[in-house]
Amino acid sequence: MNMDENINYEYISGINPVCSLIKVNAGNRKIYQIIINEKSKKDPRIKDILKEAGKGNIDIREFESARFSKLYSDNLHNQGICARVSPYNYCSLERYLEKEASGRSRLVILDGVTDVGNLGSIIRNCSAFDFKGIIIPKRRSAAINERINRISAGALEEVKIFRVVNIVRTIKELKNRRFWIYGATLDINSNTKYIDEVDFTLPMALVLGSEDRGISRLVGASCDIMVSIKLGGRMQSLNVSVAGGIILYKIQEQIERRK
Amino acid sequence: MNMDENINYEYISGINPVCSLIKVNAGNRKIYQIIINEKSKKDPRIKDILKEAGKGNIDIREFESARFSKLYSDNLHNQGICARVSPYNYCSLERYLEKEASGRSRLVILDGVTDVGNLGSIIRNCSAFDFKGIIIPKRRSAAINERINRISAGALEEVKIFRVVNIVRTIKELKNRRFWIYGATLDINSNTKYIDEVDFTLPMALVLGSEDRGISRLVGASCDIMVSIKLGGRMQSLNVSVAGGIILYKIQEQIERRK
Repeated sequence: MNMDENINYEYISGINPVCSLIKVNAGNRKIYQIIINEKSKKDPRIKDILKEAGKGNIDIREFESARFSKLYSDNLHNQGICARVSPYNYCSLERYLEKEASGRSRLVILDGVTDVGNLGSIIRNCSAFDFKGIIIPKRRSAAINERINRISAGALEEVKIFRVVNIVRTIKELKNRRFWIYGATLDINSNTKYIDEVDFTLPMALVLGSEDRGISRLVGASCDIMVSIKLGGRMQSLNVSVAGGIILYKIQEQIERRK
Repeated sequence: MNMDENINYEYISGINPVCSLIKVNAGNRKIYQIIINEKSKKDPRIKDILKEAGKGNIDIREFESARFSKLYSDNLHNQGICARVSPYNYCSLERYLEKEASGRSRLVILDGVTDVGNLGSIIRNCSAFDFKGIIIPKRRSAAINERINRISAGALEEVKIFRVVNIVRTIKELKNRRFWIYGATLDINSNTKYIDEVDFTLPMALVLGSEDRGISRLVGASCDIMVSIKLGGRMQSLNVSVAGGIILYKIQEQIERRK
């Protein structure tokens, strides 16, 4: 296959990320090529990936070490394997809600998270705690770029990312489909419940706000309930990906207990 | 006061960070000067800080807006106030163990966390969940630099940071003083317990491992018990600051329940 210079390629590198890409690949990317460092071809995990890639008729190339390391700029944790892929295609929320949403659907909505490190960590949280997808707005948001796959340790290929124009309108749509909307906040007042007092066993979306200002007023007003994490120490805030991780953990714990 | 050009100054900016610095200041820094943007001098939170600073005989300066914004390079979220301080002085673990350690002492040990963003988030977790301090090694570790205060949202001034030469030796010392040492891992085996099955009410230190490889072999062998987070989804790992946040939350939850 000849690589067309006019196409924007991205690279996904590392054993786990490439493995997720091939095994889970949900149609968000075209996989053009798998490239391995000839030094790594005997690694059993790489052999395993190549076998899967072979089944899918994916082009496989072996590069000499020096050539391999020149492939692309951000080529640090490659572990001797990378995939040349198309840029990420966002998923369609409409299609998901029509075809795949069920009583077990759990989504995260990000209202203005702008740091790519936080977005990557939140994607990883979702994959670890079995949340199906993340809704981000087109404006005022970190977007999916080449770094996110690595920051998320490959979880990007396992979680659906939906991009929407208007979060408030999307929340309305989700409510019509009987989703419960939980907003995360650290402002405690009479309308806020701590996460150990809340019923999370319904189909749901959890809204996480921006690093600086939390959830915006209009989005907050659309939530069914605001939930908070009890903080016993001096500092009354957490990094947004840490707060999200704690809430997702508690939701999983509650669902496990009710099984 | 004349600023000596030969001294290394650092700047701490933003209302909450400067407020923590002045109110909590545990002797880790000399505070040379508080500088405010004259436009902000009527902000009641800034007035409050200046009142505290006045009690401590700290030099206060008012700069014109243009001069203020040229003060230092990383001057984004300053909110019209910053403090000129000495670089961070690490705390003495020996002194802490002699004088302040008690049955309620809870520490975090970082075994090779190299990303400053993660270190900042972990400091913030500790302040939020009332952990008293963080032990980091001199080598193979992110160190405290000018960015950490901001990444930790000011929590740096509220948590003690201890720097030690040898983590294994430090763990031995802590054990002699009846600390329980918990190691966080995501490798589940017969020696690992999930965090909801563990007694966390003893004086304790929680060890978190490096981003790439987790806890090193020797450090792991020194732990009393390895603890893990149940992950119900595909991805079997989390960002280290997220994992730390979840464990600290569970510890606080358990301590609250036993009160």
